[in-house]
Amino acid sequence: MKPISLSKSHGGIQGVYSHASEACACDMNFAVFAPPQAVEQHCPVVWYLSGLTCTHQNVMDKGEYRRMAAELGLIVVCPDTSPRGAEVPDEKDNWQFGCGAGFYVDATQAPFAKNYRMYSYVMEELPTLIGENFPVDMDRQAIFGHSMGGHGALTMALRNPGHFKSCSAFAPIVNPMTAGWSKPALEKYLGPDEAAWRAYDACALVEDGYRFPEFLVDQGTADGFLDDGLRPWLFEAACAKAGIPLTLRMQEGYDHSYFFISTFMEDHLRWHAAKLGA
Amino acid sequence: MKPISLSKSHGGIQGVYSHASEACACDMNFAVFAPPQAVEQHCPVVWYLSGLTCTHQNVMDKGEYRRMAAELGLIVVCPDTSPRGAEVPDEKDNWQFGCGAGFYVDATQAPFAKNYRMYSYVMEELPTLIGENFPVDMDRQAIFGHSMGGHGALTMALRNPGHFKSCSAFAPIVNPMTAGWSKPALEKYLGPDEAAWRAYDACALVEDGYRFPEFLVDQGTADGFLDDGLRPWLFEAACAKAGIPLTLRMQEGYDHSYFFISTFMEDHLRWHAAKLGA
Repeated sequence: MKPISLSKSHGGIQGVYSHASEACACDMNFAVFAPPQAVEQHCPVVWYLSGLTCTHQNVMDKGEYRRMAAELGLIVVCPDTSPRGAEVPDEKDNWQFGCGAGFYVDATQAPFAKNYRMYSYVMEELPTLIGENFPVDMDRQAIFGHSMGGHGALTMALRNPGHFKSCSAFAPIVNPMTAGWSKPALEKYLGPDEAAWRAYDACALVEDGYRFPEFLVDQGTADGFLDDGLRPWLFEAACAKAGIPLTLRMQEGYDHSYFFISTFMEDHLRWHAAKLGA
Repeated sequence: MKPISLSKSHGGIQGVYSHASEACACDMNFAVFAPPQAVEQHCPVVWYLSGLTCTHQNVMDKGEYRRMAAELGLIVVCPDTSPRGAEVPDEKDNWQFGCGAGFYVDATQAPFAKNYRMYSYVMEELPTLIGENFPVDMDRQAIFGHSMGGHGALTMALRNPGHFKSCSAFAPIVNPMTAGWSKPALEKYLGPDEAAWRAYDACALVEDGYRFPEFLVDQGTADGFLDDGLRPWLFEAACAKAGIPLTLRMQEGYDHSYFFISTFMEDHLRWHAAKLGA
């Protein structure tokens, strides 16, 4: 692991790091914000998963998380959204598949299975690296994300309820199996048998009996992807049927951008801090 | 004037607009954040001038000003840093001159005098446009900026003390006449006679008798441009000699980036709000 950049911000350090990833078989970048408290104590860690086309950098630039993370004493880790590089198979001109669109799955289909293993990367390899190199309390982890990253957060939390103390999402893709912008990606990464897709679909996981204590979801009503890509009411129905408490807040007039995310970032970090005992 | 984008954020509207500028003889873009209070009342306006290589967008993405502007009821206007376009003379590969480096002067030298009139643009043309199209209280204006934009803010405030109720800066270029990254630009825009440069140099203006009630300046100690480009101690000395109150805060460990600016954005907006009666 080597630092790419380190900048003081809000009393802490915003770093960008690079390492050779085994899971993704390529070099991967990620961002870590260490709050001022991390100088003297181990801090709980919050994972932020980004959306389609993003790298670690979008939320680092536009998410406005550092002020609250510094106040609450949270380490914030922001991974990339896919493997990258000349050796990584990609579909150029397709922003819904390949680089920038890893969908947080472990691909099983050639030629993608070698690199596109973002589920293992985010759940196993990167946490190990973070645990070894930063003053984190790995018994106190939370996860959230935006859009495709909201999908990643919900599915990882449902499949690993003991691993995360809390989970929330901004405008998540809650049912990627049936959304136009994600169904083709699942098919290419996981093959034609839809049974294999259910492990990466928040609604399907809830239907299949996976549980998590509680969710917070914010969704803008002016989001252009609301009706055909996001459809949080599907997750609301699944959670209601399963008895999972879900706070779904429809935020009037907000779109899908970081202008929306940054507005409600404080609420989400406070939500996680409360459940992490931070 | 036409909107390029409008997004709800922190309860207000972050817009980007385009218009045909007479002062710059080209189309110009600018960003305006209107806080929620602007729906019902005229709000004071704060001008933020950006640094070298920036457009209106850098601070809009990374400055983290909307939360406080929404709380304090401030309209924030972020102009571009130079004229742009195929017809605008430029020096490609020179980030310290031409596009992205207008230095907030009215150029007098061919071929730059036709377009590079950022002083008139920011002081006259854009305020008129803003006054006609947004619910602003033009009797309550403040100005601040970063680096080259800090230079712009200090010089405009000193030359127009009745126009602005307050002024502050992040890591400003306080003496561009003698700094390596700005002296060549002043010569090309204004000609070889250094007497003409003094109207665009904060230290020279103070020496020449220009006054402003009070300044706030934040400067990172880890700023790579501190010793040869910025040198706030020159402005500190000039203000001390002239009896102008200056709060110069050397911020330990901070660099020249928006990680620094965003950290102290709240302090600056509160400073302006207090003086604007917001």
